[in-house]
Amino acid sequence: MLRRLIPQEYDFFESFDRAAAQAVTAARLLLKLTENFADADPIARELNEVEHACDDVAHRTIEQLNKSFITPLDREDIHVMILRIDDIVDLTNAAANRMAYFGIQRPTQHAINLAKQIVRGSEKLAEAVHGMRSAKQYEQVMRDCITVHEVENAADDILHTALAELFAKEKNAIEVIKWKDIYETMEKVTDRLEDVANVLQGVIVKMS
Amino acid sequence: MLRRLIPQEYDFFESFDRAAAQAVTAARLLLKLTENFADADPIARELNEVEHACDDVAHRTIEQLNKSFITPLDREDIHVMILRIDDIVDLTNAAANRMAYFGIQRPTQHAINLAKQIVRGSEKLAEAVHGMRSAKQYEQVMRDCITVHEVENAADDILHTALAELFAKEKNAIEVIKWKDIYETMEKVTDRLEDVANVLQGVIVKMS
Amino acid sequence: MLRRLIPQEYDFFESFDRAAAQAVTAARLLLKLTENFADADPIARELNEVEHACDDVAHRTIEQLNKSFITPLDREDIHVMILRIDDIVDLTNAAANRMAYFGIQRPTQHAINLAKQIVRGSEKLAEAVHGMRSAKQYEQVMRDCITVHEVENAADDILHTALAELFAKEKNAIEVIKWKDIYETMEKVTDRLEDVANVLQGVIVKMS
Repeated sequence: MLRRLIPQEYDFFESFDRAAAQAVTAARLLLKLTENFADADPIARELNEVEHACDDVAHRTIEQLNKSFITPLDREDIHVMILRIDDIVDLTNAAANRMAYFGIQRPTQHAINLAKQIVRGSEKLAEAVHGMRSAKQYEQVMRDCITVHEVENAADDILHTALAELFAKEKNAIEVIKWKDIYETMEKVTDRLEDVANVLQGVIVKMS
Repeated sequence: MLRRLIPQEYDFFESFDRAAAQAVTAARLLLKLTENFADADPIARELNEVEHACDDVAHRTIEQLNKSFITPLDREDIHVMILRIDDIVDLTNAAANRMAYFGIQRPTQHAINLAKQIVRGSEKLAEAVHGMRSAKQYEQVMRDCITVHEVENAADDILHTALAELFAKEKNAIEVIKWKDIYETMEKVTDRLEDVANVLQGVIVKMS
Repeated sequence: MLRRLIPQEYDFFESFDRAAAQAVTAARLLLKLTENFADADPIARELNEVEHACDDVAHRTIEQLNKSFITPLDREDIHVMILRIDDIVDLTNAAANRMAYFGIQRPTQHAINLAKQIVRGSEKLAEAVHGMRSAKQYEQVMRDCITVHEVENAADDILHTALAELFAKEKNAIEVIKWKDIYETMEKVTDRLEDVANVLQGVIVKMS
C-alpha cells in the first residue's frame, strides 16, 4: 500500500474502524435486548444513540472526502464503504425498534440465535475493516469476509427454521406478522454485513 | 466543470432534470391520491402514465449514452443516476397501486404525512439534480442532499409511529397486512430518494 | 474486444456463462415445482444444490480475480457481475423454499405465471451474458436486456393482479401472509434479473 508514503489530512481508515465498532456495539445491544426483554426500553434508546453517532461518523467522513485531495482508496470506495457500514447500524436499530413498537413481551430462541449471528458477523467484519490498512493483511481480510458470508448463510437457515415453526404453530395472524417481520429484519442485517464484505473484497480485488 | 468546453450530442443533465421532475409529479399525485381517495382511479392512472414516461426517458438516456463519445460525467455515473431516479418513480407508483388493489377506502393521516415527506424529498432532490450542472452549486447540492437524508429520517419516524399505532389498535389482521405494506412502501420511496442523493454526493466527491 | 490479444489465466466469461446457466436451471426447477407440487421436496433439494454450486462458481471467480493480472473487463465489473448473478439463484431458491416451509399444498396459476416469466427472463439473460464476449454482439445483448426489463414489467403486472385477487377473495389472514410473500419473492427474482441486465448494460456503456 502507498498509504505511508502520502500526506493525509484525514484518516479514513480510522472512520471505517469507528463505524465498524459502532456496528459491533449495536449488534451486542440487540443481543442484550433479545436476552433481557424486561430492559427493552433503555437498551433500545442506547441503540438509537449508537445509530445517530454512526450517522455523524458517516456524515463527517463524506465532508472530509470533499476536502481531501489525496485519499488512500478511490474516493467512490470510501463513500460506498461508509454508507454501507451505516446501513448495518440502521437496520440493527430497526430490528430492535420493531420489537419495541410491536409490543413484543418475550423474544424467542430463534431471535436470540439470529442476534448471536449478527454479533459474530459484525465482529468479523470489524476485523476485516481494520485489516484494510495493510496489504499484508489482505489474505486475512479475505478469510474474515468468507466468515461474514457464512454468517449470512447461517442466519438464512435460522430464518427458514423459525418461519417454518411459526407457520406450523402460531394461529394468531397478527403474531405471525410481527415475528415474520422481526426474523426477516434480523436476517437482513446479515445481508447488509455481507454487502460490506462484498465492498471490501471488491476494493481488495481492485488494489491487489 | 469542463462541460461548456466540450462538444455534446446529447444533454444528459436535461435527462436527469426531466426524470427528477417526473419524480416530483409522481410524488404530488401520490399526495393528491392520499388526500382525495374518492378520485383514486383517475389519479392512479395518471401516475401510471408518469411512470411509463420516466421509463422512456431512462431508456432513451441509455441509448444516447451508447452513441456518445464524450459525456459530461463518467458513463457509469450517468447510467446509475438515471436508473436510480427511475426507481423512485417506480416505487411511488407502486405505493399508489397498492392502495388501489388493496381496496383501501380512506387513507390515514400517517399515509398523508408520508406522502408529504415524499413530495418534500423529491422537490429537494430535483433541485440537487439541477445543481449538478455547475461546480459553483456543489455546496448547495450537498445541502439539498442532506435535506433528502433528513426526509428519510422523518419518514422513518412516521413509519414507526404508524406501525406502533396499527399494532396497538387494529385487530383485523388483513387490515394490518395492508397498512403495514402501504406504510413500508411509502417509507421505501424515501430510501430510493436517499439512494439518488448518495449517487449525487458520490459524483461530486469524485469530481471535486 | 481485446480479449483474444491478451494472455489470460482464467476465463471469466466462462464463469459468467456457468453462473447464468445455473440461474436458468434454478428457474426451470422453480417452474417444475409450481407445476408439480406433489414432488416439491426432491425438487427443492435439487434447487438447493444448484444454489450451492453457484456459490462455488462465485467464490472461485473472486479468488481467481485476486490472482489475475489482466482481466477482460474491469475487475470491479467482474466482481459485481458474478455477485449479482448469484443473487438471482439465491432468491429463486428462497422462493422455492418458502413454498416448502409455508406448507403450501397447491400453487396457484399466478405462481405458475410468475415462474414462467422467471424462466423466460433467465434464459434471455443467459444469452445476453454469453454475448458479452464479443463487441459484435453488443446490439443483440442490449435487445436481450430490454426483454429482461419487459419480463420485470410483466411480473409486476402478474403480482398486482395476484394481490388484488388475494385480498378480494382470501379471508384467512395467514393464507394471505403466505401468498403475498410467495408472489412478492417471485416478483423480486425478476428485479434481480433486471439488476444483472443493468450491470451488463453498464459494462457495455463503458466499453463502447
